Amino acid sequence: MTAAAPPWTGRLLIVGAGLMGTSLGLAVRRAGGTVHLHDRDPERLRLAESLGAGEACAQATPGPACGSFDLAVVAVPPRQVAAVCVELLRCGVADVVSHIASVQTNVQDEVETELGAVANFVGGHPVAGRETTGPAGADAGLLHARPWAVCPPPSATPDAVEALVGLVRATGAVPVQLTARAHDDLLALVSHVPQLVASALAATLTDHPGAAALAGPGFRDMTRLADSPAQMWTEIVEANAPAVRASLEALIAQLDRIRGDADAPADAVGDLVERGHAGRALLPGKHGRPVRVWASVLVVITDEPGSLARLFADIADSGVNVEDLRIEHAPGQPRGAIELAVAPGDRDRLLEALAGRGWSAVAGAEAQR
Amino acid sequence: MTAAAPPWTGRLLIVGAGLMGTSLGLAVRRAGGTVHLHDRDPERLRLAESLGAGEACAQATPGPACGSFDLAVVAVPPRQVAAVCVELLRCGVADVVSHIASVQTNVQDEVETELGAVANFVGGHPVAGRETTGPAGADAGLLHARPWAVCPPPSATPDAVEALVGLVRATGAVPVQLTARAHDDLLALVSHVPQLVASALAATLTDHPGAAALAGPGFRDMTRLADSPAQMWTEIVEANAPAVRASLEALIAQLDRIRGDADAPADAVGDLVERGHAGRALLPGKHGRPVRVWASVLVVITDEPGSLARLFADIADSGVNVEDLRIEHAPGQPRGAIELAVAPGDRDRLLEALAGRGWSAVAGAEAQR
Repeated sequence: MTAAAPPWTGRLLIVGAGLMGTSLGLAVRRAGGTVHLHDRDPERLRLAESLGAGEACAQATPGPACGSFDLAVVAVPPRQVAAVCVELLRCGVADVVSHIASVQTNVQDEVETELGAVANFVGGHPVAGRETTGPAGADAGLLHARPWAVCPPPSATPDAVEALVGLVRATGAVPVQLTARAHDDLLALVSHVPQLVASALAATLTDHPGAAALAGPGFRDMTRLADSPAQMWTEIVEANAPAVRASLEALIAQLDRIRGDADAPADAVGDLVERGHAGRALLPGKHGRPVRVWASVLVVITDEPGSLARLFADIADSGVNVEDLRIEHAPGQPRGAIELAVAPGDRDRLLEALAGRGWSAVAGAEAQR
Repeated sequence: MTAAAPPWTGRLLIVGAGLMGTSLGLAVRRAGGTVHLHDRDPERLRLAESLGAGEACAQATPGPACGSFDLAVVAVPPRQVAAVCVELLRCGVADVVSHIASVQTNVQDEVETELGAVANFVGGHPVAGRETTGPAGADAGLLHARPWAVCPPPSATPDAVEALVGLVRATGAVPVQLTARAHDDLLALVSHVPQLVASALAATLTDHPGAAALAGPGFRDMTRLADSPAQMWTEIVEANAPAVRASLEALIAQLDRIRGDADAPADAVGDLVERGHAGRALLPGKHGRPVRVWASVLVVITDEPGSLARLFADIADSGVNVEDLRIEHAPGQPRGAIELAVAPGDRDRLLEALAGRGWSAVAGAEAQR
């Protein structure tokens, strides 16, 4: 149950004890590091400390009074990131200063405007998170196996980059090095624009409340991101406005083609769906392995306490390894279907074993995961 | 483990033994009905019959040679639905004829063009499905607790409507009566446009393959629908082109506002996200009950056979009922975090029980389900 990540025994200062800062603290302490936490909000700081994320530093502003550190990571709200990085670089509290903001270019630009070319500043962004904020949702495993963009400015030394990469590896995350500009362009595409689209799709329900009764699981998937906080996304989109605008334009152009293609809408739709398949095939498979084909088994479950336990005990007895699972909730009834993904060669054995224990189980189709 | 749906002891003819037709057959036979199946493809027909979905009718075209029926449901690909409905209404093989096409208006119009006002034709659309096709993926529970739109033309008799509603209830689905026009407008909003958006988002990766390495679980959620078959969606969008165009325009207008609002992009984004929250709040909660607040518990699991069984056995021992669960797969490592949703009052008891059994479990935030 413990991480396979390498140890890290340095001294880390984390400024900002929110969801990400606290999760980072938990992960680094698990890896063997010493962590000090700073936050303007004493309540939040106390909660993060009590969760075991590190020792609280009670100074009004983070600086040498907190100690001296190998690395400082700034995990404050987007608009404050650059100013705090500049402050930490000026006071020399840590050998290397990094941050975890969702947008990199504006922070790098602001740091360079204030301080010129800096050797010991390296931007970073763990691509992880949840639709919540605050230390209460923190999780030592949140960063595990997630990509963590490492974005050094041209002036950063190889040693500074290596310092951040070592920390990233210790959390179990996977470092991906690229420039701040490339990061922001790609994130607009895979994160910022999808976020806005999820909100826009969900918002259409407010004009057509009758549609909610006809919304299926696909619509829920497409709008889950819309639960994220408004303030955070306002700041992210603002900070990455040109790239978000370019990505939005590309998306709108694709949709416009479907809308406007009066001569051959069918061709346009078919072409779009085929290109969508090609795009999905580029996503890494489960655990970063190449995409594999799984067979699925659908089992009807009840809501009683213990029904999942009975099901998984019966699965364990069958010796079949469940690779993935998903519960499809159905409106109006206290029942649901659980979809189990297994290796294709295991499907029939599992079906037989479950039927023998009285479960209503049927074979689903094969799918790529 | 059996459905709480009412019995149905009539005689049903299903034309088209794909995923939906076969699932319908399984559900109706479970409810006590007699089912005959027709399909042009003898292989598919044999598979559906062997799955227990009904008796195969080997005629070249469906008609009185198959028997006489209380109800016939046409479950063929979109472009052929209207012609098959007309054929069945002409030959009088069933007292009432329905179908399950994703678009209603064009079918109703075509039937009326051919036959004038018809008393025993009632359109229908179960809002269910999977990202697969064919009888092999069929599931007696697929329709359970899903909304099933019932769309009678003005000429349909109350008896004909009641006949379809009785069948819908027997499958465990929830009948939602509305006009064909209203159905098509609302489905464009909650199904057809989200489908196109998922494809468009996934398609952007083909121009920027480097982005795939930075895609998180949110991007996967937003593109899952893009795995659906191109032919089916081409036909659906073509059949509902005006409503899809109107919904696309509404969505594009929302996104355009973000793109173009140079003076106050932050206000526009904040407003959009807030309206998205309001839209999400309109979605029915789990099992159609009002939305409730759940606490979440995150547990780190390994991929070994039996680890889920051990986890759920330990949960069952704690006496806590798991309301929902989700596995977050992480790229690069054979581990994952499972998120369990429980009643807020149960959270601490579950955390304590799991920690006592050696699980790495932390409290997540509360969330609406």
